[in-house]
Amino acid sequence: MSEFIPPATRFIDLPAAFPIKRGGVLHGARIAYESWGKPQDTHDNTILIVTGLSPSAHAASHDGDPTPGWWEEMLGPGKPIDTDLWHVICVNSLGSCNGSTGPASIDPATGCPYRLEFPELSIEDIADAAAFTVRALGIDRLACVIGNSMGGMTALSLLARHPGLASSHISISSAVHALPFSIAVRSLQREAIRLDPHWNGGHYDHARYPESGMMTARKLGVISYRSALEWDGRFGRLRLDAAQRGQDDSFGREFEIESYLESHARRFVRSFDPNCYLYLSRCMDWFDLGDAYGCSADQALARLSLDRALVLGVSSDVLFPLNQQRQIAVGLRAGGVDAKFLPLESPQGHDAFLVDTDRFGPAVAGFLADLRQHGMAGWSPLSRMKAIQPAHRRSGAACIQ
Amino acid sequence: MSEFIPPATRFIDLPAAFPIKRGGVLHGARIAYESWGKPQDTHDNTILIVTGLSPSAHAASHDGDPTPGWWEEMLGPGKPIDTDLWHVICVNSLGSCNGSTGPASIDPATGCPYRLEFPELSIEDIADAAAFTVRALGIDRLACVIGNSMGGMTALSLLARHPGLASSHISISSAVHALPFSIAVRSLQREAIRLDPHWNGGHYDHARYPESGMMTARKLGVISYRSALEWDGRFGRLRLDAAQRGQDDSFGREFEIESYLESHARRFVRSFDPNCYLYLSRCMDWFDLGDAYGCSADQALARLSLDRALVLGVSSDVLFPLNQQRQIAVGLRAGGVDAKFLPLESPQGHDAFLVDTDRFGPAVAGFLADLRQHGMAGWSPLSRMKAIQPAHRRSGAACIQ
Repeated sequence: MSEFIPPATRFIDLPAAFPIKRGGVLHGARIAYESWGKPQDTHDNTILIVTGLSPSAHAASHDGDPTPGWWEEMLGPGKPIDTDLWHVICVNSLGSCNGSTGPASIDPATGCPYRLEFPELSIEDIADAAAFTVRALGIDRLACVIGNSMGGMTALSLLARHPGLASSHISISSAVHALPFSIAVRSLQREAIRLDPHWNGGHYDHARYPESGMMTARKLGVISYRSALEWDGRFGRLRLDAAQRGQDDSFGREFEIESYLESHARRFVRSFDPNCYLYLSRCMDWFDLGDAYGCSADQALARLSLDRALVLGVSSDVLFPLNQQRQIAVGLRAGGVDAKFLPLESPQGHDAFLVDTDRFGPAVAGFLADLRQHGMAGWSPLSRMKAIQPAHRRSGAACIQ
Repeated sequence: MSEFIPPATRFIDLPAAFPIKRGGVLHGARIAYESWGKPQDTHDNTILIVTGLSPSAHAASHDGDPTPGWWEEMLGPGKPIDTDLWHVICVNSLGSCNGSTGPASIDPATGCPYRLEFPELSIEDIADAAAFTVRALGIDRLACVIGNSMGGMTALSLLARHPGLASSHISISSAVHALPFSIAVRSLQREAIRLDPHWNGGHYDHARYPESGMMTARKLGVISYRSALEWDGRFGRLRLDAAQRGQDDSFGREFEIESYLESHARRFVRSFDPNCYLYLSRCMDWFDLGDAYGCSADQALARLSLDRALVLGVSSDVLFPLNQQRQIAVGLRAGGVDAKFLPLESPQGHDAFLVDTDRFGPAVAGFLADLRQHGMAGWSPLSRMKAIQPAHRRSGAACIQ
């Protein structure tokens, strides 16, 4: 699966035996990462980015890899996340197929790919692996952890399980847990992959790859990532000309929107491992921030040790609807965090953070500028107090519902 | 496919050679219908109901078939559509599999099912067949035509192609044409069916039925028919117990919402013919009311011959969003129709008209009461003037864009 790894990606070896939350241990696992900018002598200018389901660690171009990254407009010298000022690390999630160890990686015990023998992965494991990576790079304190979509769940989990590691947080189009609509969409995506005969219980190869299942899963993803409103203006009822139509049968593509779905899915399917997709998708359904403390997600938010947070969401997002971002901000504020909630009117739905730099750029840049001005003089008394003990080692008795 | 036909359904034979809009002719076709109440001597109390994609003509119980129909709470003695007062006819759409001729019917020319040899069906054909059925039952004027979802498209097409047949209209959760989001959803549903190896280019049978494709299509349908808000309250993050979980593999069902989708889809798949599903689904993507007059859909609305209309929609509908119902009302008003737009706050999404009788009942009952009081004294000058010539025989030159 090495073709999925961007060329300048680097690696950190996880501990020889890396424990997995739901049981099992990974041996010889690694995390892929890329970085931009330089750490200051004061060790207080590092930002960690944790990603959504599919992105690699190549968030933006740099000297080692000039190809555009998935957040190219947001990250770089003079950009909203200004790498002339900040030292930025982006990690590829544990369980992914872009360099970090996952179901497509070779199991050292057998010499064969893990496939479904990979342990049951949780967001908490992804968070622990990201935290380990940061520390292995000599960083014991992050100025900020930024998480988009699934990455927002990873970031919340990291804050709960590694108090003291980050003093601020930008949460983008994420949630404390999944609600039924998004569970339904992801369940159907996973089912489409599993129904493809080529999936074969996880035992596919490049010659027999579950392409149609992955195409369906990705098309359903695109439908849920964007918004109807955007498509009305962009595609309307535009038809394809005869040459563009599918030749398979009389029910083939006729509308521009169908071609758009097809080309989006086509670009994705062979660049992502289906078993990795299943594992990471399931992580999102399982995650509930409340699990960290044995209490409700709202109560858990109030226990996170942070000084400042910016919570961004988009009104047209159907997968992680805006009230889930409001919930994060309100919950953090209840715990005394200076949390700003900024709902954006992007028409691009859940994917807006990838494309609507006009709205996301100034919001992120403003928060980071403020952080440089006021927030980098060390820990506030509040976050220091909360950071005494990590969430997963605390007794949850006080707040079990 | 006779098992799909409710026991008391009756039939009207279409003309020996029934022309199809996109080409071809159906021989020996028929339309299934059911009726409630009695026509008055004045011949002005008949209501026609045209349906969404899947319902049969059995909209409600009656002496011939006491089983509940798909609109049981709305239709019957003393109900919002009061069959003590109104004579109601519900037709099964041409192209369906609940008694009307469709792709699952026997082609008299070959003695075998049509399957994909069925002519390319349009909403206009469904409307023409419904209009023929009404007239064959001795009704030359309808007090009202009611259409839900796809049926709303059928009703608009009937009004355009058969001016003079109906003097009022209730449009429920429908549209003048499909927009990209709903086209995308339906395209993916059709693709899921066609990808199932059992579909086999339309040549399946009961032993090899494309069940998994139909399951995926129906689950995606249910996701788009309901609303996230309803599900948040109803299912939240409730888990299934071990006995309820799927036994197929470790990615099987875990959440209540997944079980809900599964049971909904399970009830549907063997009760509906997959080829009929493909044909009717495609009809909705193709339909554009503007085609009736060779002009825009808005201009077409203004040319419909009607006295009164009620346009209902639901704020949580993502498949036929509320602005599409607003468009219908505004367009009708531009043509001088007394059209009322009533947006409803149902949380149940597109399907609300099937379940939210508390909101839909009074709205429909109020419109019909008003119709009895004021609107049944014959045609207004406006609708008489517009009804001179049917839309498809008119020159569209005056309003081609």
